[in-house]
Amino acid sequence: VDVGVVVRDVPRADAEVVDALARHSVSTIHEAQGRTGALAAYLRPIYPGARAGGSAITVGVPPADNWMIHVAVEQCREGDLLVVAPTSPSEAGYFGELLATALKARGVRGLVIDAGCRDVAELEGLEFPVWSKCVSPFGTVKETLGTVNLPVVCAGQRIQAGDVVVADADGVVVVPRRRAADVLAACVAREEKEAVSRGRYEAGELSLDVHGMREELAQQGLVYLDRAPE
Amino acid sequence: VDVGVVVRDVPRADAEVVDALARHSVSTIHEAQGRTGALAAYLRPIYPGARAGGSAITVGVPPADNWMIHVAVEQCREGDLLVVAPTSPSEAGYFGELLATALKARGVRGLVIDAGCRDVAELEGLEFPVWSKCVSPFGTVKETLGTVNLPVVCAGQRIQAGDVVVADADGVVVVPRRRAADVLAACVAREEKEAVSRGRYEAGELSLDVHGMREELAQQGLVYLDRAPE
Amino acid sequence: VDVGVVVRDVPRADAEVVDALARHSVSTIHEAQGRTGALAAYLRPIYPGARAGGSAITVGVPPADNWMIHVAVEQCREGDLLVVAPTSPSEAGYFGELLATALKARGVRGLVIDAGCRDVAELEGLEFPVWSKCVSPFGTVKETLGTVNLPVVCAGQRIQAGDVVVADADGVVVVPRRRAADVLAACVAREEKEAVSRGRYEAGELSLDVHGMREELAQQGLVYLDRAPE
Amino acid sequence: VDVGVVVRDVPRADAEVVDALARHSVSTIHEAQGRTGALAAYLRPIYPGARAGGSAITVGVPPADNWMIHVAVEQCREGDLLVVAPTSPSEAGYFGELLATALKARGVRGLVIDAGCRDVAELEGLEFPVWSKCVSPFGTVKETLGTVNLPVVCAGQRIQAGDVVVADADGVVVVPRRRAADVLAACVAREEKEAVSRGRYEAGELSLDVHGMREELAQQGLVYLDRAPE
Amino acid sequence: VDVGVVVRDVPRADAEVVDALARHSVSTIHEAQGRTGALAAYLRPIYPGARAGGSAITVGVPPADNWMIHVAVEQCREGDLLVVAPTSPSEAGYFGELLATALKARGVRGLVIDAGCRDVAELEGLEFPVWSKCVSPFGTVKETLGTVNLPVVCAGQRIQAGDVVVADADGVVVVPRRRAADVLAACVAREEKEAVSRGRYEAGELSLDVHGMREELAQQGLVYLDRAPE
Amino acid sequence: VDVGVVVRDVPRADAEVVDALARHSVSTIHEAQGRTGALAAYLRPIYPGARAGGSAITVGVPPADNWMIHVAVEQCREGDLLVVAPTSPSEAGYFGELLATALKARGVRGLVIDAGCRDVAELEGLEFPVWSKCVSPFGTVKETLGTVNLPVVCAGQRIQAGDVVVADADGVVVVPRRRAADVLAACVAREEKEAVSRGRYEAGELSLDVHGMREELAQQGLVYLDRAPE
Repeated sequence: VDVGVVVRDVPRADAEVVDALARHSVSTIHEAQGRTGALAAYLRPIYPGARAGGSAITVGVPPADNWMIHVAVEQCREGDLLVVAPTSPSEAGYFGELLATALKARGVRGLVIDAGCRDVAELEGLEFPVWSKCVSPFGTVKETLGTVNLPVVCAGQRIQAGDVVVADADGVVVVPRRRAADVLAACVAREEKEAVSRGRYEAGELSLDVHGMREELAQQGLVYLDRAPE
Repeated sequence: VDVGVVVRDVPRADAEVVDALARHSVSTIHEAQGRTGALAAYLRPIYPGARAGGSAITVGVPPADNWMIHVAVEQCREGDLLVVAPTSPSEAGYFGELLATALKARGVRGLVIDAGCRDVAELEGLEFPVWSKCVSPFGTVKETLGTVNLPVVCAGQRIQAGDVVVADADGVVVVPRRRAADVLAACVAREEKEAVSRGRYEAGELSLDVHGMREELAQQGLVYLDRAPE
Repeated sequence: VDVGVVVRDVPRADAEVVDALARHSVSTIHEAQGRTGALAAYLRPIYPGARAGGSAITVGVPPADNWMIHVAVEQCREGDLLVVAPTSPSEAGYFGELLATALKARGVRGLVIDAGCRDVAELEGLEFPVWSKCVSPFGTVKETLGTVNLPVVCAGQRIQAGDVVVADADGVVVVPRRRAADVLAACVAREEKEAVSRGRYEAGELSLDVHGMREELAQQGLVYLDRAPE
Repeated sequence: VDVGVVVRDVPRADAEVVDALARHSVSTIHEAQGRTGALAAYLRPIYPGARAGGSAITVGVPPADNWMIHVAVEQCREGDLLVVAPTSPSEAGYFGELLATALKARGVRGLVIDAGCRDVAELEGLEFPVWSKCVSPFGTVKETLGTVNLPVVCAGQRIQAGDVVVADADGVVVVPRRRAADVLAACVAREEKEAVSRGRYEAGELSLDVHGMREELAQQGLVYLDRAPE
Repeated sequence: VDVGVVVRDVPRADAEVVDALARHSVSTIHEAQGRTGALAAYLRPIYPGARAGGSAITVGVPPADNWMIHVAVEQCREGDLLVVAPTSPSEAGYFGELLATALKARGVRGLVIDAGCRDVAELEGLEFPVWSKCVSPFGTVKETLGTVNLPVVCAGQRIQAGDVVVADADGVVVVPRRRAADVLAACVAREEKEAVSRGRYEAGELSLDVHGMREELAQQGLVYLDRAPE
Repeated sequence: VDVGVVVRDVPRADAEVVDALARHSVSTIHEAQGRTGALAAYLRPIYPGARAGGSAITVGVPPADNWMIHVAVEQCREGDLLVVAPTSPSEAGYFGELLATALKARGVRGLVIDAGCRDVAELEGLEFPVWSKCVSPFGTVKETLGTVNLPVVCAGQRIQAGDVVVADADGVVVVPRRRAADVLAACVAREEKEAVSRGRYEAGELSLDVHGMREELAQQGLVYLDRAPE
C-alpha cells in the first residue's frame, strides 16, 4: 500500500534544463507541451511577483496533518520544489514560516500545495514562494503517516517525483521529467514565433492579417453589417 | 440568428463624457444611476491599481474559443474598452499578452471578460488592465464563430456596444450610452454632497447627527441599554 | 428579542494587553489558545500589508442594510475594532470610505465584516484596514434595525463586545476578553520556543532531529526505500 | 429610471405555441435555437419531476425584499410563469407556499427565481414547481419598490415580459416571444431527426457510422493502437 | 480550555414542547422567533422527506476525526438530536450507518452536521435523517479529543446542549431552550394567521388587498404603465 | 503526445470480481483499500438510487467538445463503465439520452464524468446511471480530438483503462485492475466485521465498549463533568 513510504534519491532532470524551463512562463510551457500539464486554476501565489521552478519532491498527506512534510524536508536538495497533495480534500494551513526556513536552508525553490498555508507575511519576507488553494490560520496535527516521492494527484494533475514544476502569476504547470528537454525546445521555438507576432502587432498590424484568418472566417460564414439587426 | 456577425461603426458616447465618467469610482456611478449597472462582484482586476473606462466593444464567444476576440480588435479605436462574454460558462484563459499588445496599439483602455485570462505578469508590465472571473493558463482554440457588437450579458448585466464601461478596484459598472451625460451629472452632484459629509466626519461629527437619523431610529424602536440583557 | 438594541459602555480588555496581542500573528494566537478562535478563511484583507487589533464593537445587521453601522460609530472609542455580521447571509457592499473616515476620527483600528465592502482604493489611501468576504459595489439601504454590542456569530466564531480581535494577512482571530492576558503569555512562550527552532533550522538542522520525531515515525511503520515500488 | 414601475397587459406568444414548446425539453429547445437561451446551470428544480412552461411575467426585486412579487401576482394570468431576478445578488428565501397558493389560483405554471425559495415540502404538495438558486429559510422584508414586466437579467439571460420560458430537470431556457413559432418548428424537426438516430443506436449501430464521422476523424489524425504507448 | 470535555445530563426543554415545535416547519419557526435561528442554507437533507426535531446534544470535533461522536452516543437519550461541528472546516464523511444504528437504538431523532456524511443509501433505509454540508466517502480517524455538550457554532448559529433543533426540507433552525414554549406559541399564532390568508388566496383574493398594501405602494411612488418605457 | 489516440482491447479485471466489487458500497471499498481511491465528492448521481460498477473505458476530452465520447462507444463492451475527464475544466453538458442509448445497446453500466450532463429525466427513464459535476443544458461541439483508454485524472483520481470503478449514492471509487481481487477480499472481511458491530449496536451496546475505547480516551485526558464550565 501507499502509506508510510519514503522513496530516497529520485532521479531529477538535468539542472540546466530545469532552470531554463523555469525562465519560461507557465502559459507558454502549457501550450508548448500540447496544452497539457496545467494544474487547476484555484492554486494561486500567496504574494505578487512569486515565480519558481524546480524538480518535484512529492508528498501525500492525510487531511489536516502535516507530519510528512517534516519527513520530506530531508529528501530535498538544491533546486527542488515541494509538491504536497492531501489524500482527502483539506483547506487547513499545513505550512508556515518554520518549515519554509528549513527548506530554504536546503536550497528549495518553493512549494505547491493543494491545501492551505499560513504565515504568508513572513513567507513573503523570506522570499519563499508558495502556490496554495487558500490561506488559513487553522493548523494541523502530526499523527498519521503518508508518502514522500510516490506519485500524487495535485490540483488535477498527476506528478511524479523528479518531474519539473514551474509556477508563476498564471498558475502551475508540470513537465514529465523525460520530456523536459523537448518541452524546453518547444518553448524556445514558441517564444521566437511570438516575438515576431508581437513586433507586427506593436506596429499596428492585425492578427487577422498576420495569421491570414480572413478567408477561413468568411468561409465559415462571418458577416459584417453596418448596423445592428433588429 | 446571433452567430457569426460583426457590426461595424457603432455609435459611442461623447469622448469627454466618457473620460469624465472614468474619473469617478464604480461605486459612485452605481449609486448615481439609482443602484443599477454593477456587474457581478466575481469580476476582479488582475493587478492592484487597475482602473479604466471606455466605450464598450462587445464580443460574444463560444466556450474556450477566442477567435472572435481577434476579429473584434479591428473594430476597436482609441477610447474603447473590450467586453467579452461567453455564450456558455467558461473559465478558460481567453486572453493574454499578444492580444493586449494589438489592442494597446489601437488605444484600447482595457478588457472586461466573464471568463479567464493569462499572462497576467506581462499584462501588468504592459499596463493593460483586465477584469476577469479568474486567471487560468488553460488556452483556447480558434474554431467557432461568435458576435462582435451585438448585445451581450456579461456577469449579470446586459451591455450594448457603445455603452460606457468603467472598472476599478471595486469592480465594473455599465452606463447606457444615452444616459451617460445624465449619470455624469449625478456623479458630480453626489461627490459634492459626499465632500461635505467627509469634512464633517473628519471633524468628529456623527452621521447620526449629520443626516438626522436619531428621530427615525427612535421611532422604529431602537433601545439603548447600559448593560447586555441576560 | 435581539432587534433594535444598543448596549453602551461595554467592558474592554486592558489596552496594553490588547496592543501586545495585536503584535502577534493570527496564526500564533490561534495556536496559543489551543487552536481555537480563528474565523473562517474566506475573510481576506482588502489590501496587502493590512494588520490590526483591537476591542470588538459588535454589530448585527440585516441583509443589505447598513443602518446599524452608523449607529455603532458612536459606541466606538480609541483602540476599538468594528465587527459586523449579517443576520442572514449577504454579499452587499456595506461599508466604504465615508464610514471609514468617521471611524478613523474616533481612533478605530479597522473592520472585520462577514459580508462585502467597497471603495477599497480609498480605504487603502486612508490606511483603514478591512477584512471582508468580498469586494462589491452593490450598496445597501438604511431601513431596518439590528443590534450593537450583543454577541454575534461572525464567519463561524461567536464574538462578544469587548473581546480582542486581531487580523493580519493570515486571517482573523478572536480572543475572549477574560482570557486575553493568558493568551498573550502563551503567545510569548510560543514565540520564544519557535525562535530556538528557527535558529536551528537556519543552521540546517532537521525538524526530525530538533523535535526527535524519528523514533515515533519508525514505530508507526515508516519505511524508507531506494526506489519506488512497482 | 427602472424603479417602482409595473407594466400591464404585456403581449404574450400564442397559447398553443407556448404549450407545444413546453412539451419539448430544455436541452432540445436550447439546441433548436442555435445553442442560445439557456439560463445558468445553478438554477435547479426544488423537487424531482418538476416541469413547466409559460409566458414570462418578469419581476426585478431588491436584495432580500419580496414586495414586488406580491405586486406581480395581479399581473399574472392563466398560462404565465413568474421570473424573478434580484437587482443585486441574494440567496434569501423570497418565495413560499402562500405566494404559490395565490399564483396557482390564477393559473400560473411555476416560478424561476435567481435567488432562494422556501416551504419546498409544501410547494411539492401543491405541485407548484420552482427553479431556484438555493433553498433557504431566511425570509425577506417588504420595504423597497422594484419593477414588474420590465426586462430583467436572470441567471445570465435577458428575459422580457411575454417571452416563453420552459423549465425541466435539465434547467431553464428562454425563447424570445417573436421567435417562438420558429423555434417550435426547429424543435419538431430536431426531435424527428433524433428519433431516427435513436432507433439505429438501439439496434446497435454506432454514431461513427450513422453520422459518417470516421473520415473526418482520420483526416484530423486519429490513431488506433493495440496497446498503450509507454 | 474546551478540549477533551464531556458534560453529562444537560437540561432539555419539556418533551411535549419539543415535539410540538417539531411539527412546525423550519421557515415558520425562523419567522416566529423574529427571523433568528436559521442555520446556513448549505446544510441539506440527505434524502427527500427527511424531517426531525429534538434536544441538541452538541459535539465539537477536530477536522476529519470522528472519535467524539462515539463518545457522544452515550450522552444521548430518547428525543435527542445530535449536532456536530468541526473546530476547523472539514468536508470528510464523519458519520455512517453504524453510528446511526447505535443512535437509533437510543431513540435519537437525527443528525445535523457541519461537515460530510456517508452511507446515505443505508441511512435512508434506516430512516435516520441527516442534514449535512456534503456527502463524502472520505472517512475519518479516531485520534484527537474534542467536546460533548459544550456550546458549538454550527453552520453560523451558536447551539447549546439542550436547545431545540428542528430540521426539514427547508433547512435547520435552533430555538434556545428557555424560549421554546414562547416560540411554540408564536408558531401557533402565525400558522393561524396564515391559514386565514391561505383561504382568501385560494378564493382568488390578492395579498395587495388582503394585507392592504396598495396605499403604501402608491405613497412610495409605484407607477402603473400600459406599455413599457422606451 | 496524448492527442488523437485510441487504445483498443485494454485488459479488464475478471468479470466476477468486478461484479462482486460492484455489490459493495463506495465507502466500504474506499476503506478496504486503505482509504484510497475515492473521487472528489462533487461528483453526484443524477437520480436517486443510482448504483453501478464496471471496467473503466477512459476518455480524455477537450473543453465543451464531446467528439471522443462518440469514438469511445465502439471500444465499450458488456460490463464496462465510461469515465470521461476534460483536459481543461468544463461544466458543459457533454452527454445525453442518445449517447446513453448507444452505450446501453452495448451493455455499458453507466457513466462517470468530471463535467456536466443533460437529458437527466430521459436518462432516469432509460435507467442509465450517471455521476457528474453538474447538470447543464449547454451542449458541446465535435471539432477536436482527444484520447480513449489512455490514463486520465478524473475528479482528483488517476484512472487507467480496465481499472474497476464503482459508484453509488456516496460517490465514486476506483480500484486498480491488478488489486481488484485483493480489495474484494478486504471488503468481504470488513463487511463481516461490521455485521458483528451492527448487531451489538442494535442491542444497545456502545462503540466505546465494543471497541474498548474508554481506556485510550482517559489516557488522552478526556474529562467528564456534571455541569458545563463557566
